Amino acid sequence: MRTSENRPSPLPWTAVEIDGGFWGDRQRINRDHTMPAVYHQCKITGRIDAWNPQRDPNLPESHIFWDSDVAKWIEAVGYSVALHPNAEFERQVDEIVDWMEQMQLADGYANSHFIAVEPENRWRNLRDQHELYCAGHLIEAAIVYAQVTGKRKILDILCRYADHIAVTFGRGDGQKRGYPGHPELELALMRLYQATDEPRYRDLAQYFVDERGQAPHYYDLEAIERGEDPRGFWARSYHYCQAHAPIREQTGMVGHSVRACYLYTGTTDLALETGDAELTEVAHRLWDDLTGRHMYVTGGVGSIHTIEGFTVPFDLPNDTAYSETCSAIALCYWSQRMFSLDPHRRYIDAIERALYNCILSGVAYDGETFFQCNPLEAYPHISPYALLDSMSAPTHHRRVDWFDVSCCPPNLVRMVASVGGYFYATTPNRLYVHLYNQNTARLTVGANEVHITQATDYPWDGGINFTLELAKPTRFELALRIPGWCREYAITVNGAAITVELDKGYAVLDREWRAGDQVTLMLAMPIERIAAHPHIRADVGCVALQRGPLVYCLEEADNGAGLAHLRLPRTNALNYAFDADLFGGVGTITGEALRGESAQWCGELYAPAANLDFTQTSITLRAIPYCFWANRQPGEMRVWIRET
Amino acid sequence: MRTSENRPSPLPWTAVEIDGGFWGDRQRINRDHTMPAVYHQCKITGRIDAWNPQRDPNLPESHIFWDSDVAKWIEAVGYSVALHPNAEFERQVDEIVDWMEQMQLADGYANSHFIAVEPENRWRNLRDQHELYCAGHLIEAAIVYAQVTGKRKILDILCRYADHIAVTFGRGDGQKRGYPGHPELELALMRLYQATDEPRYRDLAQYFVDERGQAPHYYDLEAIERGEDPRGFWARSYHYCQAHAPIREQTGMVGHSVRACYLYTGTTDLALETGDAELTEVAHRLWDDLTGRHMYVTGGVGSIHTIEGFTVPFDLPNDTAYSETCSAIALCYWSQRMFSLDPHRRYIDAIERALYNCILSGVAYDGETFFQCNPLEAYPHISPYALLDSMSAPTHHRRVDWFDVSCCPPNLVRMVASVGGYFYATTPNRLYVHLYNQNTARLTVGANEVHITQATDYPWDGGINFTLELAKPTRFELALRIPGWCREYAITVNGAAITVELDKGYAVLDREWRAGDQVTLMLAMPIERIAAHPHIRADVGCVALQRGPLVYCLEEADNGAGLAHLRLPRTNALNYAFDADLFGGVGTITGEALRGESAQWCGELYAPAANLDFTQTSITLRAIPYCFWANRQPGEMRVWIRET
Repeated sequence: MRTSENRPSPLPWTAVEIDGGFWGDRQRINRDHTMPAVYHQCKITGRIDAWNPQRDPNLPESHIFWDSDVAKWIEAVGYSVALHPNAEFERQVDEIVDWMEQMQLADGYANSHFIAVEPENRWRNLRDQHELYCAGHLIEAAIVYAQVTGKRKILDILCRYADHIAVTFGRGDGQKRGYPGHPELELALMRLYQATDEPRYRDLAQYFVDERGQAPHYYDLEAIERGEDPRGFWARSYHYCQAHAPIREQTGMVGHSVRACYLYTGTTDLALETGDAELTEVAHRLWDDLTGRHMYVTGGVGSIHTIEGFTVPFDLPNDTAYSETCSAIALCYWSQRMFSLDPHRRYIDAIERALYNCILSGVAYDGETFFQCNPLEAYPHISPYALLDSMSAPTHHRRVDWFDVSCCPPNLVRMVASVGGYFYATTPNRLYVHLYNQNTARLTVGANEVHITQATDYPWDGGINFTLELAKPTRFELALRIPGWCREYAITVNGAAITVELDKGYAVLDREWRAGDQVTLMLAMPIERIAAHPHIRADVGCVALQRGPLVYCLEEADNGAGLAHLRLPRTNALNYAFDADLFGGVGTITGEALRGESAQWCGELYAPAANLDFTQTSITLRAIPYCFWANRQPGEMRVWIRET
Repeated sequence: MRTSENRPSPLPWTAVEIDGGFWGDRQRINRDHTMPAVYHQCKITGRIDAWNPQRDPNLPESHIFWDSDVAKWIEAVGYSVALHPNAEFERQVDEIVDWMEQMQLADGYANSHFIAVEPENRWRNLRDQHELYCAGHLIEAAIVYAQVTGKRKILDILCRYADHIAVTFGRGDGQKRGYPGHPELELALMRLYQATDEPRYRDLAQYFVDERGQAPHYYDLEAIERGEDPRGFWARSYHYCQAHAPIREQTGMVGHSVRACYLYTGTTDLALETGDAELTEVAHRLWDDLTGRHMYVTGGVGSIHTIEGFTVPFDLPNDTAYSETCSAIALCYWSQRMFSLDPHRRYIDAIERALYNCILSGVAYDGETFFQCNPLEAYPHISPYALLDSMSAPTHHRRVDWFDVSCCPPNLVRMVASVGGYFYATTPNRLYVHLYNQNTARLTVGANEVHITQATDYPWDGGINFTLELAKPTRFELALRIPGWCREYAITVNGAAITVELDKGYAVLDREWRAGDQVTLMLAMPIERIAAHPHIRADVGCVALQRGPLVYCLEEADNGAGLAHLRLPRTNALNYAFDADLFGGVGTITGEALRGESAQWCGELYAPAANLDFTQTSITLRAIPYCFWANRQPGEMRVWIRET
């Protein structure tokens, strides 16, 4: 990243080999099951062949979202084959790239839907039609795939497309003053700028960020040009796509949550690149609003289904939670940039919260089915956010193979494949360790090569052993993140206990490191009862159980139905145990709780409370990590447990 | 009603003069404010002039729902002028009827939208287009207005239209085998049959009821005829309009709740008329499902906004409750018929619950603004069921003048204007008294005229004094309803206490009555804490306060914000007081409760519960009747109060 010299840059995923442990398992399942499953779905639905000039005419027509689905899968292939070569994945990508080359128009335009289905409508509806969004995902895919494989063809295609977009949009004569209805291209252009060193891509991102929400409103003008009344916009307000005001005037999170987080990721990239103080302030203001008023304890964001986005602060219902997998992923993108802007633990806390909870909830333990929405409370057969789903689709409490609008599965595969890229960051004299899992990272500090290895059972155990390998002794700061959830920790270097002051949440060990140096970090990981901010009315009187980064939940499979009737006394002890037989081994929490039930209910819907013979039975509740919910028989689930 | 001789028939509204008290006020406000307000809105939106052959061409085109809105207002005028003559109301109706006569087509067709806007699409989309629904409302209006005023023109118009419908639909050659997408016409045809004694209207209702949901499915066939894929139906399933199966095979409440309740009202009419045992069983099964598994404590039904209807049993969220005013009204229609089928108190309990709570919540105390949805928990600026309403319309917690689809306001005016029709029912030898309010009813028992007068402050007081006036002594049974909410009651006849066994919830006084006989009924009306069925997870750990038929609620105006933090200890005393200054005088409930608050919240969204310094403050809570909520400054509201 083109940040100022002292700003931390993430260590790229290619430098971090996760060779076991929690994320090793998740990445293996991602490679062996999820990536083939996503390809299979893209193939059978016609997405892969959307680019095929000789496609079977019986396949459905390319849809406006499809390029983005395929692009995210290509990007995931790039991440994955960097450390785990896979000729079949590459063959699948190369075939698509060849088709893409044939389909791309002479002027550089490259969108499978508008080329094949409605060429007359190119660039006529930026507000709704996702052309610029798809371009962004294709650019990201091209950067990663070309970088990892050395095959430049896809990047050349996308540079031509980006150049076409730069000619089409802008403030010059004959240019359209539009910008993406669904942001994403902004961050992709900043990546392209970093990959190619071509300032025109940065300038185009800057234009898109600055033009957004200006008057006269481009979405009004293009609607009128289409012969439509701008007031007919289905979402009623440009808040939906964060185009209600210029970005520099925006004060809080509104609208569609994935759009918002992608937009502010690109905005933060720009702030990092240009040092723009106003954009820096906007990024801080909005990120603080997001994580201080709009985030679930699982790291999910965007609570309402009608707009797949934000309502008002603290409005975080659990059963109707939208909490889209893609939003939590986008939160990670944004937070990673925020850390470069302001190297504080809190941004990585948000990433860790989202990764271990909301994002992993998005995929089944076996890697082959998906949630788009990740509610914190679920009941069989009730889908409060879907049309008549109560009578048909079970998508609220059971994962499914695929969705009509299937943004989340391919987003999830690229996130899991690239998770190593969130583990470390470097400055010229500091190595930040953000996340903990068995891995080996190869980096240089100054001009010296450093290998750092983690040995740990995290997140089941809070002990991490680091081993450093260096060609020659090198002085640098090793900065170990002390997570926000951790209240007690201890550090040894080569067996000797040391004490350091925390610097923005990091224990900074500044010394000359030598080959074979051993550092241990012990993070106390007791079970904690977590309370929600009193303004979150949905959680009043309840606690969530958390241990380390993992939020736990109750499932009917362990606790029977009627989870709302369970109450956990504040003073009852809770016990942690590792269950080696469950999902390949997970930590579980048990404790004595009360189940309150009316011994004989009268049969009426409503009855005088005084007449009811209410009994409290002592039971043992059992909680499992939220990210593994809905992997057993269908049933209720609940994160927030009533207290007494 | 053409029921068997022993079945009770409702005493018509024309025989019941409500000359004061609770409903006297509501009817006065209805006449003086709500009916003019509804006419005004119908006028300024173009609804009234939809029938005007010389309408201003600048007015918007007639919409497919509009005839029903105007019809319900005409029906309300009929109810109202019967006892409160109003020449202006009649002039307004007569003008419309004259226009209607001019607009009606030669074949009898009479729909303002399809005549003026899209004549080519007549009867081409019964599933979505509301033609038969509008016909039903026009027929109901015609019956009432003609009966009350003696002006037959509107009834003649609608009989011609009904005859046209009877020719168009049926199983004969050249007839369409369709039926209403939005039921209503079935019950209207049964009323028309009763009003005209023409069996062909009953037969048409029977056809519509029996044809519904048969295979091959008419909505599939007509979609194909329109060149559409039937699977493109927006609601995805014919459950939405209760056409997923033949009515005789239906087992529970599904789909759009107003459609459902109108449909089963007509079905119950048919069962009453024909004695059809199967339809009788269906009516019982579905009504029991509705009130035993799908009804809010306020009498609202239909909990989900996406389909304005039912989800699964016991899924009754409070903040996202759809609970449409029209549904509660439709519940009353259906329940009144059920009482004729099975003269048990429970059907009138449901009517009383809906009338005093959900339905009256639908209109402001001043009579001029309306709710379509009546949630049981509300927060300013949050509209969980509306697109982006969190950022625009305040319809979740503030009533509005009107709606684009404005079924509820005119439905509400006809219900309030006709509420006297729910007070009594008669058989040849029994007079049922269902509801209590100051009023005088004039009826005949056998051949003898009987006047019965109620003097009472109900619902604020449980004492009711009845005075009988008769030309000569007459023996009959006076059956007084002992409401389901009442656990203790006492009866005197001419000052002497008497004891009787209840017959299906009625205290039956069988004697020879004489002029001047006095009966008193004392219904004990303590404040009660009501618990919900344990399967209603939204209400677990909470109670609702009820006194008599009125359900109470907490408002921010009385209790401050953060109502979720209030807890009412089970054993704390609750006190009732009549506040003469509030809304013209209402009963209020006060009691000591606890407000639990974290003294110093850490500023993070989530924090360890153990670290929080939690305080409990003793406060006095104040509850007002739910039906009067949202008449003061905007703020939170909550029916279900957390217990401790």
